[in-house]
Amino acid sequence: MNSKILMISTGGTLASSHGGNGLSPRLGGSEILKKISGLTAGFEVDEEELFSLDSSNVQPEEWTQLARRIYIRRKAYDGIVVIHGTDTLAYTASALSFALPGIEIPVVLTGSQVPIENPIADATENCRAALYMAASRCPGVYVAFNRKIIVGTRASKVKTRSFDAFESINYPYAARIDSGGLVINPELAERSQRGCGLRDCFSRAVFLLKLFPGISPLVFRQMEEAGCQGVYVEGFGIGGVPFVRRDLTEAIGNAVRRGMVVAVGSQCLYEGSDFSVYETGRRVVEQGAVETGNMTSEAAITKLMWALGQYEDREQVKKVMVQNLAGELGVKVNWND
Amino acid sequence: MNSKILMISTGGTLASSHGGNGLSPRLGGSEILKKISGLTAGFEVDEEELFSLDSSNVQPEEWTQLARRIYIRRKAYDGIVVIHGTDTLAYTASALSFALPGIEIPVVLTGSQVPIENPIADATENCRAALYMAASRCPGVYVAFNRKIIVGTRASKVKTRSFDAFESINYPYAARIDSGGLVINPELAERSQRGCGLRDCFSRAVFLLKLFPGISPLVFRQMEEAGCQGVYVEGFGIGGVPFVRRDLTEAIGNAVRRGMVVAVGSQCLYEGSDFSVYETGRRVVEQGAVETGNMTSEAAITKLMWALGQYEDREQVKKVMVQNLAGELGVKVNWND
Repeated sequence: MNSKILMISTGGTLASSHGGNGLSPRLGGSEILKKISGLTAGFEVDEEELFSLDSSNVQPEEWTQLARRIYIRRKAYDGIVVIHGTDTLAYTASALSFALPGIEIPVVLTGSQVPIENPIADATENCRAALYMAASRCPGVYVAFNRKIIVGTRASKVKTRSFDAFESINYPYAARIDSGGLVINPELAERSQRGCGLRDCFSRAVFLLKLFPGISPLVFRQMEEAGCQGVYVEGFGIGGVPFVRRDLTEAIGNAVRRGMVVAVGSQCLYEGSDFSVYETGRRVVEQGAVETGNMTSEAAITKLMWALGQYEDREQVKKVMVQNLAGELGVKVNWND
Repeated sequence: MNSKILMISTGGTLASSHGGNGLSPRLGGSEILKKISGLTAGFEVDEEELFSLDSSNVQPEEWTQLARRIYIRRKAYDGIVVIHGTDTLAYTASALSFALPGIEIPVVLTGSQVPIENPIADATENCRAALYMAASRCPGVYVAFNRKIIVGTRASKVKTRSFDAFESINYPYAARIDSGGLVINPELAERSQRGCGLRDCFSRAVFLLKLFPGISPLVFRQMEEAGCQGVYVEGFGIGGVPFVRRDLTEAIGNAVRRGMVVAVGSQCLYEGSDFSVYETGRRVVEQGAVETGNMTSEAAITKLMWALGQYEDREQVKKVMVQNLAGELGVKVNWND
């Protein structure tokens, strides 16, 4: 029996063509489906166009809209493919991972670096990978790109031009496509799904603070004045926050005491943070900040938005921030990488 | 004749040992020199301790202090090695590259992931690489790490735990150490040096704004109110800034019109930005933002601080932001990477 797949299109480069002011999304879902008609033999594919945006314009409102649509449609399909711009694809993949806990089917986001209208584009290849993963019966949220499948909370766009734009950060790939077809990573096959929830509320009262040398601690006061309830701080190295001359650790402590949730991680792309190693890190944890460990920045900020959207109680928010909810947290390093 | 090398120590992990509250810098320059005494045969090495900080605490004031010391001492030496923490080493390397235009000798920053006191540390190996590069007579600011030499403005700390913590971003390595000894990249050998200037003033009226989905455009108003004169925006993908529902492109335009210098780049680590490709990028450039191209974030923010510290005239600041001053800008991609 053919797998039933729903393709939800949301815009992005894959669906883009040239207008007077640069590339912007113009192709609808049915047009995309026509373009990949050579791939869909063996699948029964329906399509829906949810919105049509360059993903730089995709925001928490769209995450909620997308989560709801997937939640409603999931029982009628074996898997769902989401066509999405690459710019914020990793944010959306993380957000959906938190919004759809226990999702029973594969939800696979994909896009492309070059529009599907261009003959040399990666678009068709990425759609192929997404379709096969969507039919894999491995539940969860994934990103399909350049013949690799990445756990949704581990994807990050690391390259702006190459076809291998996405990497799985601090985590093995979920699957790959090679001469053996779609090869699922057996380590990830044990993921049990409890039945899907819909937890689609994201707080926007957050900020992403990437540190730089000389940054003023007053920024924490400003964030508070702007009504910010949570901040994700990208610290230095394995876990460092300045305290000489400009004491950010104290500013963090004050913010925490006034009810802000402060999550701290690293601005280094790989290998995560550990704020227990250096004095410059320990001070921050002593002030009540929570560590994001080896989460991606995309997962950390979306999780903070999600946790603040779910729980009134700040202690509960801090508690879930350090729990592994959707594969985003915990050491699972490939020694051969 | 032995090369005369000055080793300036500033603290960092290399010089750290365990105290009651995590690792912090405790070893002075003379102690470090003793530890690497096996390496210094063939060199005449003097040492100076300038300060002793975890580099999370190194800020523009220290950049100025370091630039001045190097400027004063440069004529007495064939090369200078700077022992520095890894957390903000890439920022300092970029800052020194701008502060010491036309430096006549090699200035080589190094550090380590593990303190030199630990027998398994990378500290000795990194000092060896730094010493040999300092004696190479290739003028410029460099980072030596894990047997590779990186142009100062191209270094970025990308890993928090591994010995290969630094990469040369969007640029070939300047040299490497292998069985042939220190092998200089011939492409970089032609760099002519005009005689060193000292331009050591850095503005702190800047901010680094890493975008995330849902960010409020009001942040630009807040930056202005805080006296910010320049901001480096890490946009999405190859060059995207949201304008739907929350119009950051308009906020950028307003900030530019009120005199702020807005530089825009990518939050993707590799391959740089090009804001001409997508509508979400073009709008920003039309509003008067300047593009950082394939600069690292570390180079972009330090260059902005430096340019605002050098020039009163905003147009002059914008002009130098898009010029290649110290190897930080321009496409020089290794096809075999």
